[in-house]
Amino acid sequence: MRKLRMGMVGGGLDSFMGDVHRKASALDGMIELVCGAFNSTLEKTKATGKAFFLPENRCYGSFQEMILKEKELPEGERMDFVTIVTPNFLHFQPAKMALENGFHVVCDKPVTLTVNEAQILEKLVNDTSLLFALTHNYTGNAMVKQAKQMVENGELGTIRKIQVQYLQGWMAAEVDKEAKIKPWRADPKKSGVGGSLADIGTHAENLVSYITGLQITEIAADLGRIGKDRVLDNDGNILLRMENGAKGTMSISQMAVGEENALGIKIYGSKGSIEWNQEEATKLTAKWIDKPEQTFTPDGNDIYKNVREISRIPKGHPEGYLEAFANIYKAFGTHLMSVLENNPMEKPDYPSINDGVKGVEFIYAAVESDKQNAAWVKLK
Amino acid sequence: MRKLRMGMVGGGLDSFMGDVHRKASALDGMIELVCGAFNSTLEKTKATGKAFFLPENRCYGSFQEMILKEKELPEGERMDFVTIVTPNFLHFQPAKMALENGFHVVCDKPVTLTVNEAQILEKLVNDTSLLFALTHNYTGNAMVKQAKQMVENGELGTIRKIQVQYLQGWMAAEVDKEAKIKPWRADPKKSGVGGSLADIGTHAENLVSYITGLQITEIAADLGRIGKDRVLDNDGNILLRMENGAKGTMSISQMAVGEENALGIKIYGSKGSIEWNQEEATKLTAKWIDKPEQTFTPDGNDIYKNVREISRIPKGHPEGYLEAFANIYKAFGTHLMSVLENNPMEKPDYPSINDGVKGVEFIYAAVESDKQNAAWVKLK
Amino acid sequence: MRKLRMGMVGGGLDSFMGDVHRKASALDGMIELVCGAFNSTLEKTKATGKAFFLPENRCYGSFQEMILKEKELPEGERMDFVTIVTPNFLHFQPAKMALENGFHVVCDKPVTLTVNEAQILEKLVNDTSLLFALTHNYTGNAMVKQAKQMVENGELGTIRKIQVQYLQGWMAAEVDKEAKIKPWRADPKKSGVGGSLADIGTHAENLVSYITGLQITEIAADLGRIGKDRVLDNDGNILLRMENGAKGTMSISQMAVGEENALGIKIYGSKGSIEWNQEEATKLTAKWIDKPEQTFTPDGNDIYKNVREISRIPKGHPEGYLEAFANIYKAFGTHLMSVLENNPMEKPDYPSINDGVKGVEFIYAAVESDKQNAAWVKLK
Amino acid sequence: MRKLRMGMVGGGLDSFMGDVHRKASALDGMIELVCGAFNSTLEKTKATGKAFFLPENRCYGSFQEMILKEKELPEGERMDFVTIVTPNFLHFQPAKMALENGFHVVCDKPVTLTVNEAQILEKLVNDTSLLFALTHNYTGNAMVKQAKQMVENGELGTIRKIQVQYLQGWMAAEVDKEAKIKPWRADPKKSGVGGSLADIGTHAENLVSYITGLQITEIAADLGRIGKDRVLDNDGNILLRMENGAKGTMSISQMAVGEENALGIKIYGSKGSIEWNQEEATKLTAKWIDKPEQTFTPDGNDIYKNVREISRIPKGHPEGYLEAFANIYKAFGTHLMSVLENNPMEKPDYPSINDGVKGVEFIYAAVESDKQNAAWVKLK
Repeated sequence: MRKLRMGMVGGGLDSFMGDVHRKASALDGMIELVCGAFNSTLEKTKATGKAFFLPENRCYGSFQEMILKEKELPEGERMDFVTIVTPNFLHFQPAKMALENGFHVVCDKPVTLTVNEAQILEKLVNDTSLLFALTHNYTGNAMVKQAKQMVENGELGTIRKIQVQYLQGWMAAEVDKEAKIKPWRADPKKSGVGGSLADIGTHAENLVSYITGLQITEIAADLGRIGKDRVLDNDGNILLRMENGAKGTMSISQMAVGEENALGIKIYGSKGSIEWNQEEATKLTAKWIDKPEQTFTPDGNDIYKNVREISRIPKGHPEGYLEAFANIYKAFGTHLMSVLENNPMEKPDYPSINDGVKGVEFIYAAVESDKQNAAWVKLK
Repeated sequence: MRKLRMGMVGGGLDSFMGDVHRKASALDGMIELVCGAFNSTLEKTKATGKAFFLPENRCYGSFQEMILKEKELPEGERMDFVTIVTPNFLHFQPAKMALENGFHVVCDKPVTLTVNEAQILEKLVNDTSLLFALTHNYTGNAMVKQAKQMVENGELGTIRKIQVQYLQGWMAAEVDKEAKIKPWRADPKKSGVGGSLADIGTHAENLVSYITGLQITEIAADLGRIGKDRVLDNDGNILLRMENGAKGTMSISQMAVGEENALGIKIYGSKGSIEWNQEEATKLTAKWIDKPEQTFTPDGNDIYKNVREISRIPKGHPEGYLEAFANIYKAFGTHLMSVLENNPMEKPDYPSINDGVKGVEFIYAAVESDKQNAAWVKLK
Repeated sequence: MRKLRMGMVGGGLDSFMGDVHRKASALDGMIELVCGAFNSTLEKTKATGKAFFLPENRCYGSFQEMILKEKELPEGERMDFVTIVTPNFLHFQPAKMALENGFHVVCDKPVTLTVNEAQILEKLVNDTSLLFALTHNYTGNAMVKQAKQMVENGELGTIRKIQVQYLQGWMAAEVDKEAKIKPWRADPKKSGVGGSLADIGTHAENLVSYITGLQITEIAADLGRIGKDRVLDNDGNILLRMENGAKGTMSISQMAVGEENALGIKIYGSKGSIEWNQEEATKLTAKWIDKPEQTFTPDGNDIYKNVREISRIPKGHPEGYLEAFANIYKAFGTHLMSVLENNPMEKPDYPSINDGVKGVEFIYAAVESDKQNAAWVKLK
Repeated sequence: MRKLRMGMVGGGLDSFMGDVHRKASALDGMIELVCGAFNSTLEKTKATGKAFFLPENRCYGSFQEMILKEKELPEGERMDFVTIVTPNFLHFQPAKMALENGFHVVCDKPVTLTVNEAQILEKLVNDTSLLFALTHNYTGNAMVKQAKQMVENGELGTIRKIQVQYLQGWMAAEVDKEAKIKPWRADPKKSGVGGSLADIGTHAENLVSYITGLQITEIAADLGRIGKDRVLDNDGNILLRMENGAKGTMSISQMAVGEENALGIKIYGSKGSIEWNQEEATKLTAKWIDKPEQTFTPDGNDIYKNVREISRIPKGHPEGYLEAFANIYKAFGTHLMSVLENNPMEKPDYPSINDGVKGVEFIYAAVESDKQNAAWVKLK
């Protein structure tokens, strides 16, 4: 086999997310960046390409051009998949076009601006059998996977209660900076109906379902729009009801002064409970009805075999955000290699287009509930 | 002056809370237990009295007898105040009778079963000018007082968001034990309309208002009654709205397996935020919009003078639950001494009958909201 | 039975340790302060006595007067034991005289200035069968007792390695304050040959032996005397060798800027290890060769029965310094009550005069080693 | 410019360190692996090469062959530098030969088995002006660099006391595994005179000097060789004396059951102190004589500009072991690019051959001290 060839949409030199995707995809030496439509102008795109040692002729003026031209390249040369790291409103079109032209896709979240768009992509993925990965990167953490498997194997008993939070403070600290660098974030046309809901709320929603294996069936959302002229939510206080009757709270904010990236979850079952916090990603705490509290670590004792295998380094060495992100690429890449070798494996554990659909549904339900003074709104 | 003389209602040998009140009141050498109506029978009360070195004639068969007989004793001998440590349904009558007969009162929370009863006591306290302390003991912690004062002095800026939780797991672990030892807790006639709401929810509610200085104006509560035949709530997921527009979540449970006494609060303002967790009571974390995170300790740097003074021991020595509880008694006792010396000071910082009224209102509002599928219910 | 009657030597109004001993002895309602020779003048002693509601005639001008006069009082009235809370150089004489006159003794550490004095007291205690408790208060912590019992029961396997530290920073921060309030601490005549060694080093030494059940047989000490004109050590870096071949390090300081009362110990065995830190006294961490890390709490799962019993409050409520201190008084008091009732129990678990002898030996060995450029010096 | 071309000595498929170096060097997309002499046989080397998509003709049977053949390749194709990831005894020869043939070098630590060898390399580096980076990877952590700079800028005042530890337990847990996989580690001919001293002790020694900017001038070492037939040290208890008079302790072990990779350091100065623990690498705690404790984070408030710049991701996202490791490669790579572009920059901050010399000296001094019953031995 050979390295997988990646084309990138978005991710110019100033883009934080482009950099993350490039590093995460490079980490395991399995994927190489071969082309891109990084920026809004060809000139800027070429500058980005140069910084990453790309030849000029693989730097394209638009995603449309990239998809069409790469399609014409010989199989031994053309990109294998497109990775989409643009602002929210620029996910749908390139994803759709890539799928329609036979390219596999990796896409940032939220997958699209509307549920309808997400469903169109879902149908395309199902019809074409092309691979699609959504980068809900936090599910790539070893300790999140350990938590998921503990729940799945019944170690916690029946899940009864959930607390999830995703708190950031940067929007309070850097309102000006945001306005300058990411004006699209405050603009519903580019960001969608949700602000924090889209940016971080969907991560929280996805994490709850990923670990518990349960669907959120109903939410009641009291959103905040803190600051002058703020149109989109930047704060949320949400009640959750799960398909099995469990209840919970979700607290999100980008105005929580002093918080950095405080994604945290606590799940309470009839026999035990677990707690995980992204800022201390390599620890998983478990508390039990009849045993002392335990702390699990990625390469420590009593870790599920498949979880241990995703750690790249031996015990006691922190793995971080990029490693978790890289795990999405690694699972997707391993899957894609098996497909390219005509010996497709069962889909490994990485977020799917269906996770994307659910995320957008969640955003809409929260906005709707908030309009109705936090009345309950059902999720499908 | 002399030691203050305390009479106790409830608190027999098996009673956890009786023991706590005795130790907390003894800690500073300012209060002595002189009489009691500890148990339901005179025989048991005498056994309790003996264990605490009381003479037999100061062990009474009922609180009524205690109040009437003590009233007849000469001033140099009779009790100064009554402390009430009985189950919830037995707070109102002894508190009322004590006040009506000229005795000051310390009372456990929730103060009464109904709002009406609480208001009757409030009126009595106002009319008689007798002292009344409610043992919301967590407000006795030095770091809680530091937090309150930081908010009051504007260090956090405008309060925008609140997260409060009070999680215990003992009810899951010891359902049988509870049924045996504290059957009154599961019985609405004795416990009131709230279960966890009364037991721990009122502590959370009181802590929010104490630290922020803001009233909760509206709540939406989704309660859980986990377990067979459970009548009263033992789990709650609650949205909060504050008088200044701040929003928040409250999560309470006595079925949160593995949690011990996880009362915790996070308060976010426009300039900074604070976090306090009861299980690590001597730490207060503050995060800032423009400075690194700080950790405050009771006798550490930059502590408000009045906060430092309530610490009994120098830096780095943990103070715990009993010390915080004792701070309520110390503040009440200091106040009472000033009254007995006919030189009454301004009321020091201890929870009042009005805190009690608010607590019962909170319980009723939460139960009402839950009945209406978590619709918003206003607090007065 | 009745309350035990305590006479106090030292502990005037300004004395931190006097206050600690008074509160700790009062906590369980088992001991009452009946007399004292608190200060250097009768006038000051009377002021102290008044603050604690003592009659004037039980306030004595000297410890000699107190011991002789109390001895003449009828058995139903006179003190049962003397508690000594004076600076180091004033421990020996009152302890000796109390024992010689038939009074039991509680004494602060280090027990005396010299090994010879300590041995004289040890002989007196053995000859008279009077009770003697040394207030190595940290051994009163529930989690320290849990650790001791885990080692004793072989849970850790063979002990191989020890790390102990006791770090404070107050001497750096409050040099002036110290010079004013506690001039005796810097004066070898009053403090003894050791500075930090006596003040905190002996706590560390005692804790190592208490938990491991092993004697320290040899030490190599490199001491620091930081600051102008400093005569006594205020910093120490010490190698330890234990009777079973285990090795370790001890790091002590009163110039460790920013540290409050950082007494901490880590003990490594062939099967597991434990860590305890005084500032988070209610947690004990255990790590295992074949199991995930565990955290033990005083009233949590898998706690030894005798450890659980010393907790005064249910799970999740912090116990602190005063409670641990009170556990020494409670064990001593329980022992003394059994003696007074002529039905003496086996000595319960509280530090003895022999612990005192070992502590003074440790101080002298460290000072000797330091003089010899940190050569090994044997302990007996 | 183009990507830097790396040739690897050692690092076959089973090698943990080979994998680390490959991932760390790949992370920033600046370096590509172009050739290798990975294993002891050409066959195995080819298998390794295939897994990393190398052409067969760049897989060499020995490092000698690799260096000579690569030297003959045209400048546009041949490797730019050699990275050496073999066991300790196989560092010196390839490093020497690479330097003698004009290749820059990255080398794992300890740099050589003997001080003499290290000095030969140092002379070669100085004489040739070729670049040499030693992978003391922990100095690549952002918070370590922040600590260094805080000391350098005098924020802590005069350094007075040091505590450093590096504790692992894997050797106790996996004696058999070690014997099988890494037999060279227990063999002085292959590992050198130090066991834990070489493996982890040098990291601790390097970290102390890196952060404080002070040389260790004298050590007293009491080593342990725990287990049957153990020849090399696997435990160490060491006193430190620094060039400015500061004192300290070092505790190292690979038999500290339950510890994962507990490298931790505390540095006390006259104005403040800092603490850093590798397992929570993105936190730096600072305590102050006159301010509350602070916690610094890589992208948080009050971080030195150059420190902030080395973070690849925004605040609150953990960076880990690989990112720190990659920082060594990034600094070395940036330096090398400037050299290749004939515009050499000043040497950026990465560990040098002189750090390597000091590390080997430290190992020898510790072993010598231990032989003399922990007498003081001077470092040059």
